[in-house]
Amino acid sequence: MSTKPFEIDQHPFGPAVGRLVHQFALLPGIGRKSAERLANHILSCSQAEAMALADAVREVKRSIRRCTVCFNLTDREVCHICSDPRRDRKLVCIVEQPKDVNSLEATSAFQGTYHVLGGHLAPLDGVGPDDLTISALMRRIRQDGVEELVMATNPTLEGDGTALFISNLLEGQPVRITRLARGIATGSVLEFANKEMLSDALRGRQTF
Amino acid sequence: MSTKPFEIDQHPFGPAVGRLVHQFALLPGIGRKSAERLANHILSCSQAEAMALADAVREVKRSIRRCTVCFNLTDREVCHICSDPRRDRKLVCIVEQPKDVNSLEATSAFQGTYHVLGGHLAPLDGVGPDDLTISALMRRIRQDGVEELVMATNPTLEGDGTALFISNLLEGQPVRITRLARGIATGSVLEFANKEMLSDALRGRQTF
Repeated sequence: MSTKPFEIDQHPFGPAVGRLVHQFALLPGIGRKSAERLANHILSCSQAEAMALADAVREVKRSIRRCTVCFNLTDREVCHICSDPRRDRKLVCIVEQPKDVNSLEATSAFQGTYHVLGGHLAPLDGVGPDDLTISALMRRIRQDGVEELVMATNPTLEGDGTALFISNLLEGQPVRITRLARGIATGSVLEFANKEMLSDALRGRQTF
Repeated sequence: MSTKPFEIDQHPFGPAVGRLVHQFALLPGIGRKSAERLANHILSCSQAEAMALADAVREVKRSIRRCTVCFNLTDREVCHICSDPRRDRKLVCIVEQPKDVNSLEATSAFQGTYHVLGGHLAPLDGVGPDDLTISALMRRIRQDGVEELVMATNPTLEGDGTALFISNLLEGQPVRITRLARGIATGSVLEFANKEMLSDALRGRQTF
């Protein structure tokens, strides 16, 4: 919320439009000009169309929560992957964010389940192990008798560090730890990898 | 509303997220990938941030209406330009859209008032004189004793045609009709003209 309030009040169509432009400009990848264009669209579209957008935003915040098993986003208590009996609960793929689950699911190359950390360790930004879902992961490994963990954190310094931290926690335990094959360029993020790269990386996963 | 409904129901995070992605993708300039990114932002931002966006959309549709004099968008009965006693009501600038008023106001080169047509004549698309605010303009010209009309419709075939139609309606009446100087490239739209071009075009306006 860094934009100056006077801009909001000084919008030629009044503060309500100023606030809407401001709200659109807070969205990722939306600059001031795009925000003005989006606001103009809302001004000119029908009441029903505008309400459909507003209601969709509300409804998502009302209905979407974290899966109590894997912490993926879902509209149920347990997500559709964790509650699918055909998925292997002894094979767990560790990712940073819910969107990474979608990227991997799009390959159809993985029949196990997931665990969403909610980010990566970043001591300088104050993100420690307790800010991620690591203790829930440890509990899950014990309770479900997990046999293999596939590390699919981003291939960055922080992602690798987080994977290393988890593998150290599990030293001496009977869990095989692998990681995605490095078909993916170091320094990039999973979100932008294509299906082929991700399929190859899943097939070529290596012991961590 | 042309996107197929099955995409909405098949979103991995459930139909609520699918609907939000769909709604974002309906906005101008937002593709499927951008819509996913915006939905991810809504999923990860705070409840208050998401509600601020939803409420801003609602509030704009609730509070914004057409100025009863010039048909510009406003949150009052009469817009801030029409109700400003320093603005010349006998000098009226004709534009197609409310956003064109903003572009011209940003130049500070015009001390008259505006009239927003709400588009341009387009017989092939079924837009005739009755779909624009032309009859209200004629009434206003009589009642206020307007002395000069500045045609600032877009310098396109349709914009020019609309200006010509209005000037024909006023033949024989004591109103001077001018148009913006063509510093602006024919075929482009006012929205993307910069302040300098628009200032020059206002100063160099010619008898129509």
